[in-house]
Amino acid sequence: MRIAVVAPSCTLKRDAAEAVQAIVDERGDCELIIHPQCFLTDGHFAGPDEARLSALREVMADSSVDAVWFARGGYGSNRIAEAALASLPEAARAKLYIGYSDAGFLLAGMHKAGLAVAWGPMPQDVARDGGDAAIRRALDWLVKRDAAALEPELAGPAMAFNLTVLSNLLGTSLEPDFTGVELLIEEVSEHLYAIDRSMFHLTATPALRRTRSPCARCPCPWPRSPPW
Amino acid sequence: MRIAVVAPSCTLKRDAAEAVQAIVDERGDCELIIHPQCFLTDGHFAGPDEARLSALREVMADSSVDAVWFARGGYGSNRIAEAALASLPEAARAKLYIGYSDAGFLLAGMHKAGLAVAWGPMPQDVARDGGDAAIRRALDWLVKRDAAALEPELAGPAMAFNLTVLSNLLGTSLEPDFTGVELLIEEVSEHLYAIDRSMFHLTATPALRRTRSPCARCPCPWPRSPPW
Repeated sequence: MRIAVVAPSCTLKRDAAEAVQAIVDERGDCELIIHPQCFLTDGHFAGPDEARLSALREVMADSSVDAVWFARGGYGSNRIAEAALASLPEAARAKLYIGYSDAGFLLAGMHKAGLAVAWGPMPQDVARDGGDAAIRRALDWLVKRDAAALEPELAGPAMAFNLTVLSNLLGTSLEPDFTGVELLIEEVSEHLYAIDRSMFHLTATPALRRTRSPCARCPCPWPRSPPW
Repeated sequence: MRIAVVAPSCTLKRDAAEAVQAIVDERGDCELIIHPQCFLTDGHFAGPDEARLSALREVMADSSVDAVWFARGGYGSNRIAEAALASLPEAARAKLYIGYSDAGFLLAGMHKAGLAVAWGPMPQDVARDGGDAAIRRALDWLVKRDAAALEPELAGPAMAFNLTVLSNLLGTSLEPDFTGVELLIEEVSEHLYAIDRSMFHLTATPALRRTRSPCARCPCPWPRSPPW
């Protein structure tokens, strides 16, 4: 099992890469190929659009790679997603793609294109509280398809997005088919008025009414003040 | 010329209301009816949804009112827009509606419903630098349809939205027909990465390609740091 790491959004920190490599070495059941592009910096992107796209296309087309692990979120994968999915090589269809947050743009488009995707922890998460366990969970799924790594309350196909990513991909070429999908919202630090506004957009969008778990409007108790 | 002021989003400040009233008194060419709902507070809304909707429906249905002036932006008009536009009374079609910013949700839906709308300064703007002149410009248009009050560089039908409002109304029942419309973006204080993300959404949305002035992708030089 060879797992390639690329960074379509923001730069992977060196110490996070080393910590994940150490976990992989200790397990001994897989090989990690961290693409050098992960450490590029251009503004707050992991290199310019061309470099991020090129690294992603490279690992997608590499038939020796079994899985592509997105290094971290932030912002930027939407800028290269459509080009990444154009004229897909056959090897791109024979692997699993995993990530979340800003990588949701790519995962959505990949799902729409018929590729196998999973929502799960990313290498940079090793630096978070509980990050070690999260990385091991992601690897358990990547290497062994261990069902214990899955969210236990899900009973069928699911997708997970933060509100901003989901709101901004609606109506674009990346919008996946939500029919019958359980939709999870991962949100950690938005103003409640902004959450309410995004929920307005989501609940007013016909495509999202085909999910198995329709969104509910927020009650909006305003514990945080808006910036204006 | 009777102009009703209601607040579908945030609360109008008393001193702003007084300053606008003083300008109107000095002109002597119109009458201002500031609805008491403008001064309600519920969280940061100008009263609960029901109160904001009720005041708006009241002035829309009032055949003695020639124009409805939205008091200020902020957030909240989207929560009542669809209900405000249901089963429109005939009197609602015989008046002009004016505002911008968060009121863009209403203006968009009203334009779609065939009502006469204008994008222009709102009463709370009197408190800004240059606010006095802005209020006089809005009144010149409301009372006299004075062409000198219009943006001089526009050569045809136009709409103006901030990116967040525009992004969040795409695909909803409020989305207007953009065919042949010159689209102005009014944006004052977003992180550049967020502007880029919204521009991605806008430029990737087929409905917006029917404007007379297609959007261009942002170059994204990142002068402000993202919050993460």
